[in-house]
Amino acid sequence: MAESTTSFWKRKLHEIIYEADTPAGKAFDVVLLIVIVVSIVIVMLESVKSIYAVYADLFYTIEWIITVIFSIEYILRIITIKNPRKYIFSFYGIIDFVSTIPTYLTLFFGGYNVLLAVRALRLLRVFRILKITRYLGEADKLVVALKHSRPKILVFLFAVFIITIIAGTVMYLVEGEAGGFDNIPLSIYWCIVTLTTVGFGDIAPITPLGRFIASFIMITGYGIIAVPTGIVSAEYSRAGEKKVHVNTQVCPHCNEDKHLDQAEYCHNCGNPLNE
Amino acid sequence: MAESTTSFWKRKLHEIIYEADTPAGKAFDVVLLIVIVVSIVIVMLESVKSIYAVYADLFYTIEWIITVIFSIEYILRIITIKNPRKYIFSFYGIIDFVSTIPTYLTLFFGGYNVLLAVRALRLLRVFRILKITRYLGEADKLVVALKHSRPKILVFLFAVFIITIIAGTVMYLVEGEAGGFDNIPLSIYWCIVTLTTVGFGDIAPITPLGRFIASFIMITGYGIIAVPTGIVSAEYSRAGEKKVHVNTQVCPHCNEDKHLDQAEYCHNCGNPLNE
Amino acid sequence: MAESTTSFWKRKLHEIIYEADTPAGKAFDVVLLIVIVVSIVIVMLESVKSIYAVYADLFYTIEWIITVIFSIEYILRIITIKNPRKYIFSFYGIIDFVSTIPTYLTLFFGGYNVLLAVRALRLLRVFRILKITRYLGEADKLVVALKHSRPKILVFLFAVFIITIIAGTVMYLVEGEAGGFDNIPLSIYWCIVTLTTVGFGDIAPITPLGRFIASFIMITGYGIIAVPTGIVSAEYSRAGEKKVHVNTQVCPHCNEDKHLDQAEYCHNCGNPLNE
Amino acid sequence: MAESTTSFWKRKLHEIIYEADTPAGKAFDVVLLIVIVVSIVIVMLESVKSIYAVYADLFYTIEWIITVIFSIEYILRIITIKNPRKYIFSFYGIIDFVSTIPTYLTLFFGGYNVLLAVRALRLLRVFRILKITRYLGEADKLVVALKHSRPKILVFLFAVFIITIIAGTVMYLVEGEAGGFDNIPLSIYWCIVTLTTVGFGDIAPITPLGRFIASFIMITGYGIIAVPTGIVSAEYSRAGEKKVHVNTQVCPHCNEDKHLDQAEYCHNCGNPLNE
Repeated sequence: MAESTTSFWKRKLHEIIYEADTPAGKAFDVVLLIVIVVSIVIVMLESVKSIYAVYADLFYTIEWIITVIFSIEYILRIITIKNPRKYIFSFYGIIDFVSTIPTYLTLFFGGYNVLLAVRALRLLRVFRILKITRYLGEADKLVVALKHSRPKILVFLFAVFIITIIAGTVMYLVEGEAGGFDNIPLSIYWCIVTLTTVGFGDIAPITPLGRFIASFIMITGYGIIAVPTGIVSAEYSRAGEKKVHVNTQVCPHCNEDKHLDQAEYCHNCGNPLNE
Repeated sequence: MAESTTSFWKRKLHEIIYEADTPAGKAFDVVLLIVIVVSIVIVMLESVKSIYAVYADLFYTIEWIITVIFSIEYILRIITIKNPRKYIFSFYGIIDFVSTIPTYLTLFFGGYNVLLAVRALRLLRVFRILKITRYLGEADKLVVALKHSRPKILVFLFAVFIITIIAGTVMYLVEGEAGGFDNIPLSIYWCIVTLTTVGFGDIAPITPLGRFIASFIMITGYGIIAVPTGIVSAEYSRAGEKKVHVNTQVCPHCNEDKHLDQAEYCHNCGNPLNE
Repeated sequence: MAESTTSFWKRKLHEIIYEADTPAGKAFDVVLLIVIVVSIVIVMLESVKSIYAVYADLFYTIEWIITVIFSIEYILRIITIKNPRKYIFSFYGIIDFVSTIPTYLTLFFGGYNVLLAVRALRLLRVFRILKITRYLGEADKLVVALKHSRPKILVFLFAVFIITIIAGTVMYLVEGEAGGFDNIPLSIYWCIVTLTTVGFGDIAPITPLGRFIASFIMITGYGIIAVPTGIVSAEYSRAGEKKVHVNTQVCPHCNEDKHLDQAEYCHNCGNPLNE
Repeated sequence: MAESTTSFWKRKLHEIIYEADTPAGKAFDVVLLIVIVVSIVIVMLESVKSIYAVYADLFYTIEWIITVIFSIEYILRIITIKNPRKYIFSFYGIIDFVSTIPTYLTLFFGGYNVLLAVRALRLLRVFRILKITRYLGEADKLVVALKHSRPKILVFLFAVFIITIIAGTVMYLVEGEAGGFDNIPLSIYWCIVTLTTVGFGDIAPITPLGRFIASFIMITGYGIIAVPTGIVSAEYSRAGEKKVHVNTQVCPHCNEDKHLDQAEYCHNCGNPLNE
């Protein structure tokens, strides 16, 4: 039956495109990864004027080839999934659409450069493919540690933020425009640059009192740089105990991607995972 | 009885203003938080000349609105507490007063700009309201770890301070005015900038010997940056074992704010918590 | 028998050159270490024009003495080993050859300066001799911790790399050429300089929006600097449990260098370790 | 008996000067601490030309008062100890002598400024008095952790040193004099500035290849900054288990300063601790 054959091909393609358990699925991901990396490198090189002057035509051609590949991928993703709306309005569905469309728009509008930023969004696609790295088992543990650390680090960053506002205001009043502390937001920017120990040096105190206070701010920064590290260390040690198992099956109906190894039916929509 | 009604309203207001257990209490804190944030943003924007030139009048109006709100809050805080002196001379009582009064003073004196610093003190009010964040349970653990780390970090910072003085004197003698090391305090400032890895670059050694010693100072800094981190990590891991429970009840008599959940009488002054 | 005497000397020399268990073996390593350090110091000083102008002849003489010593060492290493091909094509065999030959090449070609880089490779020889440091027992634990941390740190660095690409593109679009963000690769370079908290200051944002985004990038960097530290801390604590014992015997047949203390025969090629 | 009285006073003075168990001993240390701090502040302020121009006479007077106090302290230390040679040739004995004598030398020689460096040595005296801080019990744990970390951190710093030499040579060859990498030692200095994330910016790569390699060096630095922290964290956690008890008794015969609380005789020379 024709329908059954179609259904077979759709299932086959779904497995290749959405999953990474089969050799074909892995190959698809690797090819896509290469295309994404090439597309990003092109965006980067285009921004270098001396290179763009010489290779503008080549870039134009590669850009169109990549766009066609991404268009085909986008269409296949819609066709092979049972519930296309789920994909189209998912985070990656939107990314896929938004990062493919700009090249077509340049046919009608001249604003080639303006759409550069949107094309850079393609990089976000990498994250989907990188579910492969989860096989390493390493990233997961890191993610668990970071997830547990997040609220504490946010509280910490909030405290740091308040410190920068107070210190920034004080530095503005002490240094004034002499040392480049023209206004409070700029002083706060300087405080962030200093507390994070980046220290560009475009703005730096020149009065003795300003330098004294700056010393105090720097030593404070030195003392508190320890806090997020301590948090992550502790959480990471804790995360070490639990082992996370990962399975790359994706439900062809609802696109849900967290299933147990022995799962036959999707725990989210109840449809069979392998029809 | 009129008195009883007054007492009821006073108790009610006390609960709203000083505590955060009830919806009204939380709403009060959120409103206050917004007003504080707005007042800080105004102080910041006023310092930017190009913005101030255009919106001076708007800032003036908002400033007065905020001042009136803070004044009302201040008066309510005094009225609703049994022992007003406890509040007035407490840390936050002084902050509330000092950060409200400057705007009134500008009516009599012209020094608008001079009082800017004092108005920035309003930010300290945030900390009182942020007892809400304690509900996250995260900040407490951090605070416990930091409290235990403090004496050790102070000892460490003292050692770092002695190192900067010795290294600063050596750099002054080696580099002299050629590299901008004009005097010992300036050399010490440079040492702090370098040891904390901020490195502005406004002062930098230029003689070979000066650079050699600077290298030594930098590698030392690299080696000892580990110390506070090690301390906080260890303390934080330890702090993880104890769980801290927080209760936001505040005694209407003595303003004491640490009570057990089941407490009916203030453990500090013996008066009932809910009359 | 002549052959037996030769064999005895070969074994003796093998022990001295390849191992560090005997006083002669240690002395050989120390002498070689000094020659390597001197050769590196010469390479460094030659690059300083003012010094080279005065001591060119001296450097030339020392260079030739060192080259002769290295040549003799290279020949002895080939003679004393049973299977010379194993050594010649090993990592250190190639290093030894490549770092000795440049001086001879300058006899035929004038390009003294061009071969400087190759001569600097001599430094890599230090690592072979530093198997002595393994006696400290410290380095091993460090190496174990780093080996276990590597995959996680690589995953982490990859994530940092993606962040720099996205942030770099954003900064290029926001700042443009005003702040020196001439193209995307340069913006990414700036992002790396900033995220790692190095902050040279040769490129720095000057627009308010650029500075705002830069602040965000810096605080992110501050937050994530904690991650590799947390990983290494945890792995290092774990590595502390196992103790690694080191033995410096090296098989004269196959050059294998990891043997148990009581080993009489090479576990790799089956030949006796001490004939 | 006169001798007995002398002996009593010598014992009494020894207790005051060398120990910190009695109120008088503590007071002596506090006074000395203040004098040392004042003497250091004077050295600092003298180096600031604008201040020195005005207060030269005042500084001269204070300098002499401090010198007389230090001279008296030095003589008392010699008199009160049973075996003066032990003190005179000890580390602190030499520091005390060397940091007192410069002022007297200025009577005969004019070189006031030259002896400044030697006077700065007075700061080292602080460490002796700070045995008081040992009472905090905090510093000791830190010292134990650092002592255990030292060999590992030295091995690590050695590895970092080799990296800087290789990277410095590469940067010299790639960047050359264009970016300020005039010679290899200067390139190594730049590498240290970069790897430690200080980043002055006085030297910075300007060629694309140089910037690419610099990025690699910076990310390496970011990755390995974790190592010393991991070491200290682990050692500090371990150090937490042992508790160190400190006693400030000092033997009046041999100056040995580590005794048990119940010790009646010096474990070093066998003489009674309290005669």
